[in-house]
Amino acid sequence: MEVISGKAIADEIKAGLKESNAQAGICPCLALIDVGDNQENSLYIGLKKKAIDAIGGNARIIKLSEDTKREDLLEEIKNLNQDKEVNGILLQLPIPETLEPFREEFLEAIAPNKDVDGFGPNNRGRLMGGEPSFISCAALACMDICHRYMSPLAKKKVLLVGDSFDVIQPLALMFMEELCEVTIIPQYYPDAMDDIDIAIVEKGTPLMVKNQSVKAGGLLIDAGFHWFQDRTVGNVDRDSVAGVEGYLLPVPGGMGPLLIAHLMRNLSQAARKG
Amino acid sequence: MEVISGKAIADEIKAGLKESNAQAGICPCLALIDVGDNQENSLYIGLKKKAIDAIGGNARIIKLSEDTKREDLLEEIKNLNQDKEVNGILLQLPIPETLEPFREEFLEAIAPNKDVDGFGPNNRGRLMGGEPSFISCAALACMDICHRYMSPLAKKKVLLVGDSFDVIQPLALMFMEELCEVTIIPQYYPDAMDDIDIAIVEKGTPLMVKNQSVKAGGLLIDAGFHWFQDRTVGNVDRDSVAGVEGYLLPVPGGMGPLLIAHLMRNLSQAARKG
Repeated sequence: MEVISGKAIADEIKAGLKESNAQAGICPCLALIDVGDNQENSLYIGLKKKAIDAIGGNARIIKLSEDTKREDLLEEIKNLNQDKEVNGILLQLPIPETLEPFREEFLEAIAPNKDVDGFGPNNRGRLMGGEPSFISCAALACMDICHRYMSPLAKKKVLLVGDSFDVIQPLALMFMEELCEVTIIPQYYPDAMDDIDIAIVEKGTPLMVKNQSVKAGGLLIDAGFHWFQDRTVGNVDRDSVAGVEGYLLPVPGGMGPLLIAHLMRNLSQAARKG
Repeated sequence: MEVISGKAIADEIKAGLKESNAQAGICPCLALIDVGDNQENSLYIGLKKKAIDAIGGNARIIKLSEDTKREDLLEEIKNLNQDKEVNGILLQLPIPETLEPFREEFLEAIAPNKDVDGFGPNNRGRLMGGEPSFISCAALACMDICHRYMSPLAKKKVLLVGDSFDVIQPLALMFMEELCEVTIIPQYYPDAMDDIDIAIVEKGTPLMVKNQSVKAGGLLIDAGFHWFQDRTVGNVDRDSVAGVEGYLLPVPGGMGPLLIAHLMRNLSQAARKG
């Protein structure tokens, strides 16, 4: 399969945003709330900060301690909602275990017009029969690649593997909107890919998709992330599908950078409206 | 196919609610907002009022004129939100054309804990990765029949035909949650039913599903409503699938009464929490 460079497309998106933000005279500000001492969270926040710099924006990193109370985090979010300098608010997940039971409450507390992750129930709900302010960036990243490589989408057969609220569930609704035939399965099995034009595999084990793929000319998007044998891999064993005609968005170098580029697009849009 | 009596199940649900409401000493009150002079709306409101009487509840019908202003309807909803005697609020759809552009605003204005139709963006969003207060009654009615006739649901192959925000979209998410394999198609075609355990056909033309059905022992739910040759029919030609082994929830006498029974269940739940 032809390997799509998510990084190259992400760089192109960010360069475009840098230019349009400069032309519009805006410097989008994203508040990133980092609760506790999760090393992976710090890594992702660092990547997002770098992307914000690249589009001429401003990152405000709010570091809160592991023992932050529910009320204090809600208060912090409320203040950011009212802060006119802040265009977007992002609560880096996962949050510490003691706060996890209130996650939905935190996401709901973020003003829908600043919820650039699209994770709040209001924006999630607007995807169902309405007009969301913001859609989950991972779902936007997948849809972007589908539009670039598989247009027109109507009538295409799409397979989604998984059930996550930030990738698979919004994509199911978005592909319905595009008049695709969408099949969602909770677990991958090889036969499910027969006759499929577009497959997005989020749930699974490292490199489980082997020697088999979507139909010729189709698109396979790897949306799995695993630390495996000292390297980052996805759900797809890319070497084993090399001979198939079609496109692969791989891991690493695919979804990761694209997702952040779409976060930057949401943020720039929030700044333009604000 | 064995024809399921939606009416008998609906009567059973309502009788159970009447008893449990009496035991709990509650008299659930539903405010039904009827804007304009749509005759079908009046018919449905009449059916809902009858169901409310049957469960020992209280219907408050609010009749507003065709030329009601956006602000006035919003004000009405706000007052009902604050009225402690009102447990549920239902805006009968469709609303007049002049108000239609603000529909989402009206649905959002209804307090989520009184939104017994589950149509507001908050309840819709909570279906995606959260815990909704209320789910669309048509979707609940379908899921109820699936649980009664097709348990266990995990691994069952489900086909959904359509794209509506109150039936097909919530069902897609609910069947994912049940670990089913869900396929959603925008238009019906016969081959799509091959090897399917449960099919729910909402979008279509009168009696279009003919001489063909889901696999033996499966369940076919007709969720279409048409006025055709002087009678109410659905999307399924029930005579032509009579010989197939399995179950049919037909139109009329299927979804219609069941949907209202589930509205009564949501309303009783709202009254219990309130």
